[in-house]
Amino acid sequence: MKKMKNQITNAISDFFFEYETPRQVLVRNRRVGVVCRLIQLGVLAYIIGWVFIYEKGYQSTDTAVSSVFTKMKGVGYTNDKGKERVWDVADYVFPPQGDSSFVVMTNYIITEGQSMSKCPELPGKHNCSSNTDCEGGSFKRTGHGQMTGVCVNTTKTCEVLAWCPVENDHIIPDPPLLISAENYTLFIKNSVTFPLFGVTRSNLVEGIDASYISKCLHDPEKAPLCPIFKLGDIVKLSGFNFETIAKVGGAIGIVVDWTCNFDVDVRHCKPKYNFHGLYGNPTETDKARASVGYNFRYAKHYLEDKIQKRTLFKVFGIRIDIIVQSLARKFDIIPTLTAIGSGVGIFGVATVVCDLVLLYLLPKREFYKNMKFKYTDTHIQVSIMMHEQLFDGNAVVIEVSF
Amino acid sequence: MKKMKNQITNAISDFFFEYETPRQVLVRNRRVGVVCRLIQLGVLAYIIGWVFIYEKGYQSTDTAVSSVFTKMKGVGYTNDKGKERVWDVADYVFPPQGDSSFVVMTNYIITEGQSMSKCPELPGKHNCSSNTDCEGGSFKRTGHGQMTGVCVNTTKTCEVLAWCPVENDHIIPDPPLLISAENYTLFIKNSVTFPLFGVTRSNLVEGIDASYISKCLHDPEKAPLCPIFKLGDIVKLSGFNFETIAKVGGAIGIVVDWTCNFDVDVRHCKPKYNFHGLYGNPTETDKARASVGYNFRYAKHYLEDKIQKRTLFKVFGIRIDIIVQSLARKFDIIPTLTAIGSGVGIFGVATVVCDLVLLYLLPKREFYKNMKFKYTDTHIQVSIMMHEQLFDGNAVVIEVSF
Amino acid sequence: MKKMKNQITNAISDFFFEYETPRQVLVRNRRVGVVCRLIQLGVLAYIIGWVFIYEKGYQSTDTAVSSVFTKMKGVGYTNDKGKERVWDVADYVFPPQGDSSFVVMTNYIITEGQSMSKCPELPGKHNCSSNTDCEGGSFKRTGHGQMTGVCVNTTKTCEVLAWCPVENDHIIPDPPLLISAENYTLFIKNSVTFPLFGVTRSNLVEGIDASYISKCLHDPEKAPLCPIFKLGDIVKLSGFNFETIAKVGGAIGIVVDWTCNFDVDVRHCKPKYNFHGLYGNPTETDKARASVGYNFRYAKHYLEDKIQKRTLFKVFGIRIDIIVQSLARKFDIIPTLTAIGSGVGIFGVATVVCDLVLLYLLPKREFYKNMKFKYTDTHIQVSIMMHEQLFDGNAVVIEVSF
Repeated sequence: MKKMKNQITNAISDFFFEYETPRQVLVRNRRVGVVCRLIQLGVLAYIIGWVFIYEKGYQSTDTAVSSVFTKMKGVGYTNDKGKERVWDVADYVFPPQGDSSFVVMTNYIITEGQSMSKCPELPGKHNCSSNTDCEGGSFKRTGHGQMTGVCVNTTKTCEVLAWCPVENDHIIPDPPLLISAENYTLFIKNSVTFPLFGVTRSNLVEGIDASYISKCLHDPEKAPLCPIFKLGDIVKLSGFNFETIAKVGGAIGIVVDWTCNFDVDVRHCKPKYNFHGLYGNPTETDKARASVGYNFRYAKHYLEDKIQKRTLFKVFGIRIDIIVQSLARKFDIIPTLTAIGSGVGIFGVATVVCDLVLLYLLPKREFYKNMKFKYTDTHIQVSIMMHEQLFDGNAVVIEVSF
Repeated sequence: MKKMKNQITNAISDFFFEYETPRQVLVRNRRVGVVCRLIQLGVLAYIIGWVFIYEKGYQSTDTAVSSVFTKMKGVGYTNDKGKERVWDVADYVFPPQGDSSFVVMTNYIITEGQSMSKCPELPGKHNCSSNTDCEGGSFKRTGHGQMTGVCVNTTKTCEVLAWCPVENDHIIPDPPLLISAENYTLFIKNSVTFPLFGVTRSNLVEGIDASYISKCLHDPEKAPLCPIFKLGDIVKLSGFNFETIAKVGGAIGIVVDWTCNFDVDVRHCKPKYNFHGLYGNPTETDKARASVGYNFRYAKHYLEDKIQKRTLFKVFGIRIDIIVQSLARKFDIIPTLTAIGSGVGIFGVATVVCDLVLLYLLPKREFYKNMKFKYTDTHIQVSIMMHEQLFDGNAVVIEVSF
Repeated sequence: MKKMKNQITNAISDFFFEYETPRQVLVRNRRVGVVCRLIQLGVLAYIIGWVFIYEKGYQSTDTAVSSVFTKMKGVGYTNDKGKERVWDVADYVFPPQGDSSFVVMTNYIITEGQSMSKCPELPGKHNCSSNTDCEGGSFKRTGHGQMTGVCVNTTKTCEVLAWCPVENDHIIPDPPLLISAENYTLFIKNSVTFPLFGVTRSNLVEGIDASYISKCLHDPEKAPLCPIFKLGDIVKLSGFNFETIAKVGGAIGIVVDWTCNFDVDVRHCKPKYNFHGLYGNPTETDKARASVGYNFRYAKHYLEDKIQKRTLFKVFGIRIDIIVQSLARKFDIIPTLTAIGSGVGIFGVATVVCDLVLLYLLPKREFYKNMKFKYTDTHIQVSIMMHEQLFDGNAVVIEVSF
């Protein structure tokens, strides 16, 4: 019993008081030496310079959950056939409650006093020469209503049950009716939270207080942190021509970029605002086609002489999407050690490469093989040839060769 | 001074002209050899085959920021108690401006001519036998208004101040009033940007131009890239029965899947469209319950004889969420070298395993221990037994044992 | 030919029947031994304890694509200058269709019967003493309309073409008109899909069935999984005072946190609900300012005596953003082996550190150098001094030193 205990104790003490280190062969060879040192230095430079300093491999990353609130300001003015009117926020922003994605009306086709009844389709749609061309009860995907089966002589188009008169959107007002939208301003409130690091930031960073906001206007150079944007500027910065986009509509993405390094003071974590057109394929040749054109319809309903009527708007507008893009970095032990560890691994690769050179390319490779490898199946034999000079006490030098 | 300089120079030259390589013991043992080679080959196969080829460990990944615009087309027709009417986009899509998440009305309960006044609650709600059962000024969470404290004899329910007459949603129209919604079409415009790789793509990929869109209809096999979808198809593909979902409503997710490999031409980066029902727990037994049923209320306000009135709609509809899911991959030196490095590390593990076999399991383990380990506290002693035949000049062979 | 074949066969068999293992020097030195063992144990503890158990380095992670549907219930009551009315969901929720981001109206400034005409601006805006102060046709960003160029004597403000009478929002109703909003309830339906693991979950987890939902109310302790929330509770839990936020409005984020481990039964994957105020910078001193205040305007249009009119609402409300935050983990071979591999690499680092101690700090460093390194340019020479006693057959012990 006691004996066994001793054994264990010894084993443990042995384990603790000794340690293995690989036996190294120190190759004194200029060519190999230089090659390998350079490879090793290269690896070292890569790990320190690239992985750590450039790619910040010692940091872990996190993306944010975010929330955006927007508010438009400004008044538009139209003079449609002598009928003057102004448009305020409640009229030209859809939806009204300040979402991160909304539309600013810049142009429209209005069809007033529509009521549910029967009227001929638009010329160009459902053309017909006789009733037989208009199948009653059927629809056309692009049509305005249900065909009654009658072909109206005056217009040579099928009659439909629909909101009449049907909208005629063949001509888009040019110049756009609300060209004054250029001067509207957009206020963006954005809050981001990095759950992994437990940090919350708002685009109203330090220094962007109520008094500053009340008078500032965003400018990429002069006021990059001002959260108030002129619509005209947004369009220009995203590479569109305002007149064009205002006429047929278009979609613009405002990217709020939160690229933060929390190893420095969190106050340095500030948003960057970028603007680019959406729905386009830069790789496409006909980018223009793909990227402009945005419209939708909505109706205002009312009662006139007990008859339900509606005013239909085909709205052309600038659809703005606030896209929050975030990447925060902070020192973390895991990626650090992972980087170091795999770096050491790559060091191993370097050694392997050198060994290949050493063992297969050099002229003296056989010699180095013997140096590097110890064979388990060789017996060491020392043969000493003794040429003795009898009756003589001289020293004898023996060459022992392994 | 000069001397010191020389020393440094020598140190440096030494460093550059020599290099260490671990001394290896070459074990000639079939069992161990085979075992270890297989382990090593396994590791190699894993690194090359799995990490690199299968998991593409040499690439870094990125997810996209995206923007979606949708547009419905089509006309619905209802004949509600002989009252014919058609429903166009402005009537059945909520919200109208083409968000990535919207509702298509397929069924509704309409309550016309509501005005702010006093009326009895619905039978089944706030039942009462006398005024004492109706506490004045109090609310019921599920009620329609504020109780006045009166119990109406005719209906045996409490009287409430509310939009009267109160909505009666006990009977849901069946078949759904807008069953024709099946033929509506949905157009999806989606733009994704991979910030890390600086690539922007739109689902109007090469070849999907205006002319193609004008006539195509999405089909998983025949036209997988056509961005125009028939509502009926969407419902079918997501595993619902249209009649059911149209009646009580439901939510469907359209996942636009951008899984791209930018090591090949960016033109190969194309979206895939998947459809599945939302709000269900596939693990649940009563999936059906959880996954159908979607409705909300909205009102149209108007003035009639100077009295503010509203028409209340309880809308049952198909809520469609366009969910953009993206994962792009591109060659990157960091993950590549990290994979290699940690791969080499695993090689080390293989060696460790083999050594354990070698040093603890084999019968000749003692011998191999001596081979592998060199002890720093042993003195090598050579004892040569000399059996000399005097007066004879023969060669003597001496066994030297370490 | 045959001979060559043999050679290859031999080479292969050699390769398979032998393997290299680095020759180790076993250093029997207490100080170094202890130091190194401790370092190695530290590394081991780090890899197993930290990387694997604590950070779950053996798992791969995935975030979810999600979809949210919300539904408010409850009735509000206002008595505005003796004019009683109740507000139901269709009146106080914007937008109505149950988005993940919506606004609950808690206070409002109503301006009834606006029509497009000319009227003086608000006192305080566009003050003027004479017409020259009011440039005709020009706008003021914060104004209500287009100046006509006339200065109205009675109010001493410029006349504008606008929706008249212009809204006066100088006084915000206090206490908030819809303070009863505190008792509204919010129902959240949330569905998440983890594409990488192919798992779909809904917040109506096992046990949260229709019958439970019909009577439960969310409580952080008692009913953490109940998806029905009292608005008052939400506000309290997010650290606001209801009275304040109801008056001027504010934004609240409801974070649905899906942190799941799919190595255990998927049924354990349940949502956590957290509440916090948005748009605030916790690092800021004036947090309060930044985080409260939320309003927008919308209008109800109607026709009165053939004149288009509107009722303008300036809505103060609680903007609620449902933010889904997800992180799922599952065992994966790649991260596991990467962690092991780089762990072995770090082991290498430990050895390197020990060697430095061994070879540069210890007094016996020269001795250890000789032990560890084998020099390729040294010739081993054994010189044996023989002091022979002639005519004597004794054993001779020779010290051979390398």
